[in-house]
Amino acid sequence: MSSGHDHRIDADDGAVHSVWNNALEPACTIEPGDVVRFSCRDATDGQIGPDSTAADVAGLDIEPVHPLTGPVAVEGARPGDVLEVELLELEHQGWGYTLVLPGEFGLGLLPEAFPEPALHVWELEGDVGHFVDGIEVPLDPFPGIVGVAPAADGDHDTNPPRAVGGNLDVKHLTAGSTVSLPVAVDDALFSIGDCHAAQGDGEVCVTGLEAPMSVTCRFDLRSDRTLESPQFRTDGPFTPTGRDEPMVGITGIDDDLYAAAKQAVRGMIDHLHEERGLTREQAYILCSVAVDLKLSEVVNAPNWVVSAYLPERIFPASSDPT
Amino acid sequence: MSSGHDHRIDADDGAVHSVWNNALEPACTIEPGDVVRFSCRDATDGQIGPDSTAADVAGLDIEPVHPLTGPVAVEGARPGDVLEVELLELEHQGWGYTLVLPGEFGLGLLPEAFPEPALHVWELEGDVGHFVDGIEVPLDPFPGIVGVAPAADGDHDTNPPRAVGGNLDVKHLTAGSTVSLPVAVDDALFSIGDCHAAQGDGEVCVTGLEAPMSVTCRFDLRSDRTLESPQFRTDGPFTPTGRDEPMVGITGIDDDLYAAAKQAVRGMIDHLHEERGLTREQAYILCSVAVDLKLSEVVNAPNWVVSAYLPERIFPASSDPT
Repeated sequence: MSSGHDHRIDADDGAVHSVWNNALEPACTIEPGDVVRFSCRDATDGQIGPDSTAADVAGLDIEPVHPLTGPVAVEGARPGDVLEVELLELEHQGWGYTLVLPGEFGLGLLPEAFPEPALHVWELEGDVGHFVDGIEVPLDPFPGIVGVAPAADGDHDTNPPRAVGGNLDVKHLTAGSTVSLPVAVDDALFSIGDCHAAQGDGEVCVTGLEAPMSVTCRFDLRSDRTLESPQFRTDGPFTPTGRDEPMVGITGIDDDLYAAAKQAVRGMIDHLHEERGLTREQAYILCSVAVDLKLSEVVNAPNWVVSAYLPERIFPASSDPT
Repeated sequence: MSSGHDHRIDADDGAVHSVWNNALEPACTIEPGDVVRFSCRDATDGQIGPDSTAADVAGLDIEPVHPLTGPVAVEGARPGDVLEVELLELEHQGWGYTLVLPGEFGLGLLPEAFPEPALHVWELEGDVGHFVDGIEVPLDPFPGIVGVAPAADGDHDTNPPRAVGGNLDVKHLTAGSTVSLPVAVDDALFSIGDCHAAQGDGEVCVTGLEAPMSVTCRFDLRSDRTLESPQFRTDGPFTPTGRDEPMVGITGIDDDLYAAAKQAVRGMIDHLHEERGLTREQAYILCSVAVDLKLSEVVNAPNWVVSAYLPERIFPASSDPT
């Protein structure tokens, strides 16, 4: 693989698109084994910057979301093949943001509880994102969107993930991981974007720690297997520190998994508000960036359990609740 | 707390019940701060033993499921209080089992794919459970059921979890963890059982690594807070080794979370069958005991992502797939 060629694709050179479409002109053509360095814009395509405030959120134009860098044509890729994408390196630019987009946008797990838009701009320092009250979230950057062009002709919204990938928001697609995607059209037409410096499993307020980023990937092609949905290999991290650490867990119990997830997140927001003194808006944002949703059980009919897990180490030691 | 009294409650002395009911006679009465050692039967109440075979599964009587040890009356507990249960120690007896219960039982996430009952009896050796083909699952014992009596009179099935706890199957209620339950009736009436030596988040085939076990708990009572659902504090383990390790992830993508979970598990069963040579039945059982379901995202409408995570270290190194 090390004999592959190196390529660069820069969103600012026009290699950006905000719909999936198998008729898009490739930004570059590569061979299996090649390495590509993508520069990726933030999810709003520059509408939010380091100096933005909540007032800027209301006027947000949703059309450019998400600007994706690509597509990359992979020579020899045919429908039914598997495109393997090894994530080699991700670099942020020192800042990021988390948005709450309810109201007319109607997004997120709890839009009814958060009618007002909100924004937190994060300062990113090396491996740490600074929140409020001394809370420090470890950074584990990954691309929220990795995918190949769908088989069906025409424009496809970038918001929902599909069998060909897209907006998966799998937080463990960190550097060192490999994601495998089912190729649906000739040359695969791979694109990437919506990078997050951190995110909880669930991404409950609809944004992670959104950040413009560069991502370097190595591509390989396999025709000896097929896939029905994206798969991946990862070493984590599975906790912020990469080893066991104290967590608070809050259960949501319902005969509907979506309702159970909502209940668990509402309970975690209560916990962060009552025990940690955050505003409910700050709590919702922190849930989206640092709290993981696990499916504890999906078999004890008629009630399923979704649990929300909060790592305690993100808080300064002096703030421990009684 | 160390000044509390010690108690023992043994299922074999008649302190066992297989429904929740707030009129049950307490097996013992304790004060906050006391420690209780519960002996807990397996989930089938002795119908499955170390020498059982799949043939024994078909004749299983579902009535005694689950035999719970208790109830414990906690002096001073009043509706609206919170009962805190610290899990001090769990001890298995060297064996356990995992059951597939489809057909007339209709249980599990994929009953349509597994029409025949199945059984694997595990040998438990210290901290390791032996499966097939040299696969070793680390043991992290926990009680599948912890709960207090519901406010509503009459018998209540032990299968579904409720706001007062019960069949939560939260795998992180390991020794060292504390679970907090909302008290609904005077004296709380706490019971415990359905112990698992290991389980994946999801418990997809409807049983974990079921095992008779003793559980030692310390009880405390708080009247300065209320709860809407069970909460807990835990140090994990969040991976089998307690630190980052290689995982294979398989996504399920659907506009319904339950369907997404089914797709992810079907994909993992395919993986275990095709890449690791397990039968589909063995794969289903291993998913239930060692594969974790995470809610990757629940906000990218209309499609949500549930991912199934398989730890690679449970396989002997010589069996790595190409």
